[in-house]
Amino acid sequence: MTMTRRELLGAVGLAAGSAAMYSAMVSLGFAQASTYDGPINLSGAPDGSRVLVLGAGLAGMTAALELRSAGYEVQVLEYREKAGGRCWTLRGGDTYTELGGATQTVDFDEGGYLNPGPWRIPYNHHAVLDYCKRLGVRLEPFIQKNHNAYLHRSDAFDGEPQRFRHIATDYRGHVAELLAKATNQGALDQEVTADDKEKLLASLREYGVLTDDNAYVSSDDTSDYRGYDREPGGGRDAKGVASDPIPMSDILQSDLWRWLSDAESVHHQNTIFQPVGGMDMIAQAFEREVGDLITYNAKVTSMLQDEDGVTVLYEDAQDGGAPVEVTADWCVCTIPFSILGQMEHNLSSDKTRAIDTMYYAGSVKFGLEFNRRFWEEDEHIYGGITYTDLPISLISYPSNDYLSGGKGVLLGGYVWGANAYQFNAMQPEDRVKWAVEYGSRIHPQYSDEFSSGISVSWHKVPFVLGCYGIWDDKDRDYEPAVTMEPEERIVLAGEHLSYLPAWQEGAILSALDAIQQLHQHATNG
Amino acid sequence: MTMTRRELLGAVGLAAGSAAMYSAMVSLGFAQASTYDGPINLSGAPDGSRVLVLGAGLAGMTAALELRSAGYEVQVLEYREKAGGRCWTLRGGDTYTELGGATQTVDFDEGGYLNPGPWRIPYNHHAVLDYCKRLGVRLEPFIQKNHNAYLHRSDAFDGEPQRFRHIATDYRGHVAELLAKATNQGALDQEVTADDKEKLLASLREYGVLTDDNAYVSSDDTSDYRGYDREPGGGRDAKGVASDPIPMSDILQSDLWRWLSDAESVHHQNTIFQPVGGMDMIAQAFEREVGDLITYNAKVTSMLQDEDGVTVLYEDAQDGGAPVEVTADWCVCTIPFSILGQMEHNLSSDKTRAIDTMYYAGSVKFGLEFNRRFWEEDEHIYGGITYTDLPISLISYPSNDYLSGGKGVLLGGYVWGANAYQFNAMQPEDRVKWAVEYGSRIHPQYSDEFSSGISVSWHKVPFVLGCYGIWDDKDRDYEPAVTMEPEERIVLAGEHLSYLPAWQEGAILSALDAIQQLHQHATNG
Repeated sequence: MTMTRRELLGAVGLAAGSAAMYSAMVSLGFAQASTYDGPINLSGAPDGSRVLVLGAGLAGMTAALELRSAGYEVQVLEYREKAGGRCWTLRGGDTYTELGGATQTVDFDEGGYLNPGPWRIPYNHHAVLDYCKRLGVRLEPFIQKNHNAYLHRSDAFDGEPQRFRHIATDYRGHVAELLAKATNQGALDQEVTADDKEKLLASLREYGVLTDDNAYVSSDDTSDYRGYDREPGGGRDAKGVASDPIPMSDILQSDLWRWLSDAESVHHQNTIFQPVGGMDMIAQAFEREVGDLITYNAKVTSMLQDEDGVTVLYEDAQDGGAPVEVTADWCVCTIPFSILGQMEHNLSSDKTRAIDTMYYAGSVKFGLEFNRRFWEEDEHIYGGITYTDLPISLISYPSNDYLSGGKGVLLGGYVWGANAYQFNAMQPEDRVKWAVEYGSRIHPQYSDEFSSGISVSWHKVPFVLGCYGIWDDKDRDYEPAVTMEPEERIVLAGEHLSYLPAWQEGAILSALDAIQQLHQHATNG
Repeated sequence: MTMTRRELLGAVGLAAGSAAMYSAMVSLGFAQASTYDGPINLSGAPDGSRVLVLGAGLAGMTAALELRSAGYEVQVLEYREKAGGRCWTLRGGDTYTELGGATQTVDFDEGGYLNPGPWRIPYNHHAVLDYCKRLGVRLEPFIQKNHNAYLHRSDAFDGEPQRFRHIATDYRGHVAELLAKATNQGALDQEVTADDKEKLLASLREYGVLTDDNAYVSSDDTSDYRGYDREPGGGRDAKGVASDPIPMSDILQSDLWRWLSDAESVHHQNTIFQPVGGMDMIAQAFEREVGDLITYNAKVTSMLQDEDGVTVLYEDAQDGGAPVEVTADWCVCTIPFSILGQMEHNLSSDKTRAIDTMYYAGSVKFGLEFNRRFWEEDEHIYGGITYTDLPISLISYPSNDYLSGGKGVLLGGYVWGANAYQFNAMQPEDRVKWAVEYGSRIHPQYSDEFSSGISVSWHKVPFVLGCYGIWDDKDRDYEPAVTMEPEERIVLAGEHLSYLPAWQEGAILSALDAIQQLHQHATNG
């Protein structure tokens, strides 16, 4: 008798402990291989070796933290007055001035916030999660999928929002019924063996909540999934009243099915997190570690390398004034290409082409505060997302402080593409006005309860001029851009230099690869 | 031009405020009708009117709280030394003695707990949620569905657990592909109009992540849903490696599809909650309100009504001794029928039949503590449920304290039916031993990391002798059992007197209906 793989693992665990067992799990395919292999462990930096890190976003602070720990002398130059970059949270009392000079002051009550940039951490973003663990950032579940939130199109169901659970359950039921019908008619006998056919029908009855005759109908069974018209209760006259499915044709013609799988992608699946209190809790945690290395309000204007090292010029981001020169042996540059392309540098022609041809996506987010959490109180929506074809694209309800009294802040829109350009062209107060107007078509309570609002349009964010980097020709330009050649002193890092663009995980993984290259250069020098 | 319903609502809101608008929303069908209509508001209890409540579970404490507030003099008799009933949490230091005398002492570290009874609060359990809000019970999301947890059968895939996301994504993809094929062959032309056909195909491509040719294949697109073999990263050589779908025949024959819809039912859908710190935080919150009304350790032995009132006998639950007699004008009896049937009472023959024919489901739960949270550290499973055909049925990972160091407690099994009888017959230490043995077939780390465990088998829980009440003939017996006849002084309440059996919502809604009946009797003299 041979051992099963599981028995083998048990034996490895007993004989050699859990670390050995975990290695065995990875090689046997139980644990998923990730590009993040746990804490990096560099050591043996040459004595007095000095590294300049440009940018104190997550990529820059990861590089600073790990390089100092390896023994390098590290200085970080940051354009803003605080660290974090796009890992950013706006709270009551904060002010924000966008390109063009419009300044918004956030008027949210304590506890309310908007994350203009990243707002979610998927479970497979192993590097971000590990830094959160190491740096003590508390996480809580982000609710992506909420069966009681809405799907909405202005041209469907007379503009009435539909509960996600109605559309999702009914679509699944009708699909199962149709496939069962086709299977029973023999239409798939070429595709499905007789043995599989019985299993397929049994599975469809389960999956679609079909009757024994493979029909999707109004019943207590289907109401247990789509919800009852009157919910079952207790005491007298407490039986539930079953609800009626929406006909398939109505669902198909509504186009509301377009959003059904959004929460099923790896980046949105359960369990997905947010930091308790706002995304910049991660930035603050990094800043507690490396804040002493950061020079704030430093606007870099020039970055030149030669065979001996790197020379960087910066000026005061607020007041300008005489440029300050700093030199170092090495440099990690996390400045977005949208900014780097406007600076003086002498990077290789390959890298320069990547920098100059990258464009930055536009995106707009709205934080709207209301006098009460009507979405919870009136509509029983606790976190999650309502999707709409209105220009705001979606409304996301806060995944925290459920059932609390007082005001509440929701994400009043998260806009890409043509709509983002339209909002970008508006003044902040007009953006908010329109977000409230559009949202009130889904939640009529908006008009009564609106308290205050802010918006961030990423094309007008001075320190990045866009949301994330998009490659003109990634197959051609990516590897040269991320590779530090033997003669180079500068290595580039950031979300734009990853296959997880726009995600913090991409920024951190890029930084970890960059500093490994730098360390190899420095120690093999 | 007529107003849309939404415009009408906006107008109502502006004219009459949000309460009026909410009423209008209910009548127009926007807000879901619930059997819970918000806080009950009884008043005008006759002077000196006295109510005895039997049982300090959620039904009894709800009755006590609301009746006192209406002006009644209330006394509660409780068999146990504390309140809550099945709303119960076991923590380090607690002891529990089951029927037969076996005593377990819980050895969990601080923060670890087992909820032997209810452990989840669905978003549509409006009464429980409202009492949590009013009584200050903090809630956090319970993770029901976790795409990275496992589906497992001993006889499928060589006993290797499969990630939920693999089975779910591939099943959905194959179903979509098969239905697209049948549709394109014209097999459903009787069912689907030509206009709907195009929409159906477009929707299946979206839903199943199919190619433009309606095929479900290995690709970056499908890997974005089922997960990559190597995840995309940052820096050099960071492209993801796409994974290969599992063939439909393997999925069908594995029977793992049986669990795919479990999280889609109304009772398990997002957003579903748990109290921070354990379910009995609800019991403790009620107890803070009505604890002064409760006589603990009071084992009721007799409950008799006549035209003047109610006479109850109880003795000390620990020491026996002489029975104590208490009298009252009215009585709310929340004692489970499994216990009530063994007591002296003079309820009507209809009610007696309901009591004597109700049986109680058996169920067993296991709380297992491990030296580290290996499910998070090794396998990236944060909350959620792994399903198995092993006798433990499932493993549920804690939906709290994610990424924390130290020990962790998971639900090592939640067992019903025949398996529950088998575990029930064992001594507690053997139950735990087997739960660890079974669980180690899914998580080989069990054997290395197991720290301590407890189990609760509901048929051996002295105060209820089962998990929840099951009706012999609900259509016949239910309404007579929940209805307080004019000549009666006793009204019955509890989860068993609801259409939400086993749920706390059923207990509370039953109590609210019961005290309304009682109040009507008392005030109409």
